[in-house]
Amino acid sequence: MLVVLLAWDFSGGENTAQAGKEIESLLDLQKAAWNRGDLDTFMKYYWNSEDLTFQSGAQRLQGWKALLARYQKNYGGGNGDMGSLDFTDLVIRVLSGEHAYVLGRWKVIQKGLARAGVFTLILKRTPEGWRIIHDHTS
Amino acid sequence: MLVVLLAWDFSGGENTAQAGKEIESLLDLQKAAWNRGDLDTFMKYYWNSEDLTFQSGAQRLQGWKALLARYQKNYGGGNGDMGSLDFTDLVIRVLSGEHAYVLGRWKVIQKGLARAGVFTLILKRTPEGWRIIHDHTS
Repeated sequence: MLVVLLAWDFSGGENTAQAGKEIESLLDLQKAAWNRGDLDTFMKYYWNSEDLTFQSGAQRLQGWKALLARYQKNYGGGNGDMGSLDFTDLVIRVLSGEHAYVLGRWKVIQKGLARAGVFTLILKRTPEGWRIIHDHTS
Repeated sequence: MLVVLLAWDFSGGENTAQAGKEIESLLDLQKAAWNRGDLDTFMKYYWNSEDLTFQSGAQRLQGWKALLARYQKNYGGGNGDMGSLDFTDLVIRVLSGEHAYVLGRWKVIQKGLARAGVFTLILKRTPEGWRIIHDHTS
C-alpha cells in the first residue's frame, strides 16, 4: 500500500515518522477488523466520546454510539457479513505530536456490490493511542 | 449564525477564543466574497500551495490551482454569477495555536437551483493568517 507521510511546521523528526507508522498501523488494524466482520474492533479506533463527529453525504452524526448504529444499519455489522474493505492512496499528515489527519480512498465490496469514495480522518493521540476524532466520508 | 467553538487538550485560553474569532471571520469573508462573485478573494483563504488538498464525491484534487479551476468550471467563477452561498451549523475546533478544523453545512443557490451539503475544513495559521489546507465537501 502506497502511503505518503508528510509533516509541516513541526520539527518532530523521528516522532513524526513514528506517528505516521502508528497511524498506518491503526488503519491496517481497522481494515483487518472489518474484513473479519469484527465491528467492535473496527470501532475501537474511533474516539469513544460524544464529541466524535462523522460527516457523510449531507449528514452530520455526533457521538460514538451514533456512528456505531450507522455502521450496524448500513453494513449489517456484527453478523460477520460486512464485506471486504480496502484503503488506498493514503496520505498521512502529522500536524504535531498530538494531531494528524489522513486522506484516503475506501472501497467496500459486499454481496457483489462495490461502494467506493474518499475519506478525511482527523486523529488525536490519547493515552490509549491514536484515535479518530472526526471522519468525513463521501 | 450559530457557531460552536471547542478546544481540547490545549490550554490556550484567550488564544483559543481569538483563533475561533479569526476563523469565523475568515468564513464570513469567504461567504461575502462568493456572494459578490469575487472568486479571487474567496480563493485567498485557501493555502496557496501545491499541498492544498480538496476532496469531494469520490475525487481528490491536489493544489491551489486545481481547486481554482474546479470552482471556475462548476460555478462560472469570475463572471459575477456564482449564486448565493451560506454556511450554517458551524463547529470550530481549535487543536492548538497552529491548527484547527471546522465542520459546517453549505448551501449554494444559483440560477434557481439549490445545492447543499456538509464540509470539513482543516486550517493552519500562516504569517498571513489562518488558511484552509484541506477541504472535504460532500
